[in-house]
Amino acid sequence: MLKWYEKAGTEDGVIISTRVRFARNLREYPFPDRLTLRQREEIVEKVWDALSASPIAQGFSRKNLSELSEIERVSLVERHLVSPELISSPEGRAAFIYEDESISIMVNEEDHLRIQVMQEGYNFEKALELADQIDSLLNEKLSFAFDSDLGYLTQCPTNLGTGMRASLMLHLPALQESGSITRISASLSRLGIAIRGTYGEASRPVGAIYQLSNQLSLGLGEQEAIDNLKDIAAQLLEREKTARKKLCENLTVQDQIARSIGILKSARLLSADEFMRLVSNVRLGISEGLIRNVSPEAINALTIHVQPATIQLRSGKPLSASERDALRAQLCCEGLPG
Amino acid sequence: MLKWYEKAGTEDGVIISTRVRFARNLREYPFPDRLTLRQREEIVEKVWDALSASPIAQGFSRKNLSELSEIERVSLVERHLVSPELISSPEGRAAFIYEDESISIMVNEEDHLRIQVMQEGYNFEKALELADQIDSLLNEKLSFAFDSDLGYLTQCPTNLGTGMRASLMLHLPALQESGSITRISASLSRLGIAIRGTYGEASRPVGAIYQLSNQLSLGLGEQEAIDNLKDIAAQLLEREKTARKKLCENLTVQDQIARSIGILKSARLLSADEFMRLVSNVRLGISEGLIRNVSPEAINALTIHVQPATIQLRSGKPLSASERDALRAQLCCEGLPG
Repeated sequence: MLKWYEKAGTEDGVIISTRVRFARNLREYPFPDRLTLRQREEIVEKVWDALSASPIAQGFSRKNLSELSEIERVSLVERHLVSPELISSPEGRAAFIYEDESISIMVNEEDHLRIQVMQEGYNFEKALELADQIDSLLNEKLSFAFDSDLGYLTQCPTNLGTGMRASLMLHLPALQESGSITRISASLSRLGIAIRGTYGEASRPVGAIYQLSNQLSLGLGEQEAIDNLKDIAAQLLEREKTARKKLCENLTVQDQIARSIGILKSARLLSADEFMRLVSNVRLGISEGLIRNVSPEAINALTIHVQPATIQLRSGKPLSASERDALRAQLCCEGLPG
Repeated sequence: MLKWYEKAGTEDGVIISTRVRFARNLREYPFPDRLTLRQREEIVEKVWDALSASPIAQGFSRKNLSELSEIERVSLVERHLVSPELISSPEGRAAFIYEDESISIMVNEEDHLRIQVMQEGYNFEKALELADQIDSLLNEKLSFAFDSDLGYLTQCPTNLGTGMRASLMLHLPALQESGSITRISASLSRLGIAIRGTYGEASRPVGAIYQLSNQLSLGLGEQEAIDNLKDIAAQLLEREKTARKKLCENLTVQDQIARSIGILKSARLLSADEFMRLVSNVRLGISEGLIRNVSPEAINALTIHVQPATIQLRSGKPLSASERDALRAQLCCEGLPG
């Protein structure tokens, strides 16, 4: 079965993936910060039992975080299946992961449950539908803390209300290059929308990959929050596309793009950082028609496969940094045509 | 007709080409520094007439330097057909060039005649044979200044005696990398042999291309001088080969070699300096079996074709630096397989 990130997304070349997550808590337990280990383990069992009552449970695998190796845990983070916070203290925590990796249910992160759905490309409808489906089936067996005024109750008040956070992963090399992101970020924050780097430094992330997400979940419905996000995304998409056209008229940029795919295909050693920088140029080249025989989904899949822990998991043994760099280069050489 | 540098040389991967040149002066004229323009022009005619008396003249073209454009003159230097000194003041100077560019006769450089023969790979026998042939046929019509004690008389006393300088163009990336060249250079100078960078800075030339040449022409015969040079070349070859093996065990070096061919094939802009650095890695990769589908003669020919003036000559018009970089990248892309 193809992972969600191995499927072709929408073709705009900017929106890489869509994510929706719901925060939920069980009525009969204190919030996770105040749980004993015993209580956390009880909750993991209860949620697993609730999930298991549905036929969809067949597709889920249960990961008790304390039973995983550190490499396995970090790889879950790299694949965006769990948060760095979840693995920071694995005891009494779990993640239930759907086979195509599009759905994960984190147990005992900041809230008792975090239901998260990821979809390739621009696809809030499908993401929301799946998240709703999981939410409903769990709700048949579990009693979620809910207040008629405040909506879903969450440990952190910023998640009160719908408990929903929706986000898009965007590739914004041209807006990053032009230095516009800082200004855009300031004006978006006044609209309750955040834009942050996904990899590395938040202000100038490696590979120009950004996460655009709603910050408000109280006082407006799920659909309303998503519509706001869609409006902003449409504007960003337009601006990025315009900036890309101009950027790619530059011969030096065309040269960088052509070299990037050349180096990805030929290098024998590639650090994760260099990989991200090269791939950013390749994504840009694909979207602007300067690179023709590489698919965005091949790039998306490679990006996941070559992350430091995920690449070790794949090789079945711990690797030194230079062994990882060699294997990363080999995967690129094999995974790219020509 | 293939140029000499487009032919396959010897297969050691170190010795790129062989050069022999004779310095000769006409008995009836003062040395070039003391010639009038009129006398220089007379000498050009006399040498051309002497050459024209032989059937071999069919293959020669006559270049009166003052009638060439600056780009044409510089391109002659880039193709090693004339010295930078010859073009520094073109009036009353000429070069007679054989069609495969293996033979050139400079007139009124430091001496009245400089007969120069270049051969691909390691081939003193052929180079000396051709130079002797040209020398003899000119000598039938011209009277060379010769003293029974001092041998051929030359403007600079360092060329007295045989008037011969023999040299090898060597690629020494591993000895350069190990920092051995400075030490080698010092000990060679005591043996009357010089090693100098061909391109750029003499102490660390771009592309690790060196010229090994005899400095003594008085007190030993042509063959003796060449045998000395051969001895030294054999030792350098051995040391370079050993150093290459060790160097190429390094994964970072293998990576640099693989990237270099990848960049040469994919770049859209290439400066002459970067070209020389990449090509040095590619030569190393070919000789160590790390690059299999590129021939040394393709690299030799490219190296000549992409030099700044030669590339403009080829395109038929003056080019800006960035136009040259673009055309250079295009020639590499077209000239290399895969």
